[in-house]
Amino acid sequence: MNDKQKKPQKLKARLPRGFVDRTAADIRAVSEMTAKIREVYEHYGFDPLETPLFEYTDALGKFLPDSDRPNEGVFSLQDDDEQWMSLRYDLTAPLARHVAENFNEIQLPYRTYRAGYVFRNEKPGPGRFRQFMQFDADTVGAPGVQADAEMCMMMADTLEALGIKRGDYVIRVNNRKVLDGVLEAIGLGGDDKAGQRLNVLRAIDKLDKFGPEGVALLLGPGRKDESGDFTKGAGLDQPQIDKVLFFVGIKDYAESAQRLAELVAGTSKGGEGVEELNFIGALVASAGYRSDRIKIDPSVVRGLEYYTGPVYEAELTFDVTNEKGEKVVFGSVGGGGRYDGLVSRFMGQPVPATGFSIGVSRLMTALKNLGKLGASEVIEPVLVTVMDGDVEAMGRYQRMTQELRAAGIRAEMFQGNWKKFGNQLKYADRRGCPVAIIQGGDERAEGVVQIKDLIEGKRLSGEIEDNASWREARVAQETAPEADLVAKVKEILAAQAEDRKRASNV
Amino acid sequence: MNDKQKKPQKLKARLPRGFVDRTAADIRAVSEMTAKIREVYEHYGFDPLETPLFEYTDALGKFLPDSDRPNEGVFSLQDDDEQWMSLRYDLTAPLARHVAENFNEIQLPYRTYRAGYVFRNEKPGPGRFRQFMQFDADTVGAPGVQADAEMCMMMADTLEALGIKRGDYVIRVNNRKVLDGVLEAIGLGGDDKAGQRLNVLRAIDKLDKFGPEGVALLLGPGRKDESGDFTKGAGLDQPQIDKVLFFVGIKDYAESAQRLAELVAGTSKGGEGVEELNFIGALVASAGYRSDRIKIDPSVVRGLEYYTGPVYEAELTFDVTNEKGEKVVFGSVGGGGRYDGLVSRFMGQPVPATGFSIGVSRLMTALKNLGKLGASEVIEPVLVTVMDGDVEAMGRYQRMTQELRAAGIRAEMFQGNWKKFGNQLKYADRRGCPVAIIQGGDERAEGVVQIKDLIEGKRLSGEIEDNASWREARVAQETAPEADLVAKVKEILAAQAEDRKRASNV
Repeated sequence: MNDKQKKPQKLKARLPRGFVDRTAADIRAVSEMTAKIREVYEHYGFDPLETPLFEYTDALGKFLPDSDRPNEGVFSLQDDDEQWMSLRYDLTAPLARHVAENFNEIQLPYRTYRAGYVFRNEKPGPGRFRQFMQFDADTVGAPGVQADAEMCMMMADTLEALGIKRGDYVIRVNNRKVLDGVLEAIGLGGDDKAGQRLNVLRAIDKLDKFGPEGVALLLGPGRKDESGDFTKGAGLDQPQIDKVLFFVGIKDYAESAQRLAELVAGTSKGGEGVEELNFIGALVASAGYRSDRIKIDPSVVRGLEYYTGPVYEAELTFDVTNEKGEKVVFGSVGGGGRYDGLVSRFMGQPVPATGFSIGVSRLMTALKNLGKLGASEVIEPVLVTVMDGDVEAMGRYQRMTQELRAAGIRAEMFQGNWKKFGNQLKYADRRGCPVAIIQGGDERAEGVVQIKDLIEGKRLSGEIEDNASWREARVAQETAPEADLVAKVKEILAAQAEDRKRASNV
Repeated sequence: MNDKQKKPQKLKARLPRGFVDRTAADIRAVSEMTAKIREVYEHYGFDPLETPLFEYTDALGKFLPDSDRPNEGVFSLQDDDEQWMSLRYDLTAPLARHVAENFNEIQLPYRTYRAGYVFRNEKPGPGRFRQFMQFDADTVGAPGVQADAEMCMMMADTLEALGIKRGDYVIRVNNRKVLDGVLEAIGLGGDDKAGQRLNVLRAIDKLDKFGPEGVALLLGPGRKDESGDFTKGAGLDQPQIDKVLFFVGIKDYAESAQRLAELVAGTSKGGEGVEELNFIGALVASAGYRSDRIKIDPSVVRGLEYYTGPVYEAELTFDVTNEKGEKVVFGSVGGGGRYDGLVSRFMGQPVPATGFSIGVSRLMTALKNLGKLGASEVIEPVLVTVMDGDVEAMGRYQRMTQELRAAGIRAEMFQGNWKKFGNQLKYADRRGCPVAIIQGGDERAEGVVQIKDLIEGKRLSGEIEDNASWREARVAQETAPEADLVAKVKEILAAQAEDRKRASNV
């Protein structure tokens, strides 16, 4: 400061990389969507639970998808007592910690749902954020696959509650035990083959993206992508690859069930897995959910290592146009599975559990595509303009504003520099205010206000000829006694709502 | 693993220090409360906004209350490009960053509300958490104190919308310029006295806690608390202390306004501050808010350094019993003020702003004290018990459960180990299920179900004599055709609701 050549440096306002500010429209859409999801979950007997954003790093475990890097992928810092804490990267690990910590107070089976932000310390990219919202539901202490079946039904019901038509979605179900059986059948059983198994899982998980040919390369020698980057393969030989591809290529489970059972016969858990799949299929059918809603589909893998039994995925099956202009299936909006080992990491006993997670912003994108969000439009506030700055006049403007609010109408008094009246109307226009209230000294003396219909005014100036008949019905500005303010504004807002209805029915 | 003496160490499930898991009741109460707050803010023309939990550390600034430690108090970590990021410690600094970053797109005055978690890296203690929720509302680009007056009215309306009676709260208003004028008048003006001024502000802020005598000590030589800990004083002499105490001791502003104006006469901004206070007082009165709702009160300080004009605080005035068994006034649940310098840190131009923050969990505690939350009770789910584990039986149980849900009734099929039937009824009892559905092989053959009224059953076994007349009206268990399941369950739930109503009217 003593050095005159040093100017005070202006601080640069900038968001941290990979983070976003959320707009009003986005916040309202998510809140509309999550309210509907919550209602379904509540009907299914689930209760809300929330854990803090921090967990001790050791409690989170190393269950990040697509990551062998133990200390990467999460945001971590050391507390003043030297313990490492991390921001949660999903909502499952914190649930496992919560259940284990409160095991004696919790009544099992324990049904909870949780919505909240999770964090990934990864390189940000287009559409890849480092903070995003998940919405999970889990049942802890539920050993039977009927609990997994219920999760699938709840996912199906949730998608329909959100307005997604039957036929536009499907819940696909597989079983990790069957997959493990196939891997064992081709000689990849045993602890020493864990790494190779994981590579096979990840290859299969790319089926949507690369098709069977691409996956065959990833299972075998490796695959070079368009940019020339080479991904090392899992090193399987052709007969092994064929068996894996048969398995993940099954389209009609009933047709292939027999051959599948033969393939996994003699493996440690493959047969059990097939039985579980059959049980789930029969149970959901018996509860009235046909295969157009919940479908056994062995191509579902779910990349996470901790799944131990059924895995399931909610897929939206309608087409959207991607950034390259191609029509593609919208794809997954969430999924989950059984993770019988996650809680027991903390306990001396097994605690079976199953649950799923919805990617909130991805599902919101889907619903926007379908025009299923934002139906309940928010009307911008009525603007009470300011013509005089003395206390007496401002008190009156404020009183009018309060009267409108008390009548349930969004309203605001202009709070910027009121001395340039043009700025006030420009503000109203940019903000999309439906109505402006004006009272200068003359009107005040007469006890009247000017009420300006800003939407009608806009239309009058832009579309006079097309709207001759509508125009007759109302005028863009009128003078009314102060006592009629609320009634007149309500009248105009109702007329505008009527106009919107007409316009959308044209 | 090869060393047989090494047992795998069990991971300890524990919450990080100073963090909590939130229960279903707490989550529902907060969501009920924030919905009401949001409605008021929306009527006032405010729109939601959300910023991420991280900001660059330099963008947050050093505005932590009660903290001269620049790098303490916040959770910080270094990004992989070496930039320091911190978790936000309030919702004001991120708003300032957001406005500055998007200045050209934002239409001023900009009204937003924001609810979310903030983090303090402090020593946790009883009732002191390191993650908590704030609910803020701000108007940026509003130069006149009419915007501050509006904030006060909005706080008053919000408290009433939450069910707090008039007389049980007051919004107290002061002005930092008046306070600065008083400090200047006693010789504490100028940049070189900034440190001493801050000490005086902090002393005044303890008025509620220590009374005038305690504050006098903090203003003068210093104060020793009960535990013997000594807090250094601001070092004022008696005439200085007297003037400060006169100022903060003003009970009736109208009576003391003249003496106050004389005290600050000749200071750079004191007179302006008094004028602003008078303007706010007259404006809220003219808009219909009397001094029992919004009151000019010079004892309000608000510890934060960044305030530049009006400051205001929402205080609940009813008594509660503290942990020592003493009756004390509940006190502050939120407050704020004008911060004309916070956005302009990033800009080449002044950007005036005013806003306030509600401490969500503190306000929730207050509402619980008043019995104003949780009115909309959540009924636990109806339990469909499991008597047989074959697919056909389970399919029927699942179908019944779905029928109940489809009729809007919370319901769940038992998902634990069904083989011990006693466990299922114990579960229903502990969970508070209102009704249990039972169907064994015999009932299935007959196409009927047993419907058990668990609440009535409980009362029958506990309070037979007192409830003779109620008991006659219904029985604890009945057999009904499967087709009547939903109707019968609805009947029982309605009767239970009626009972609850009777009981609460006794």
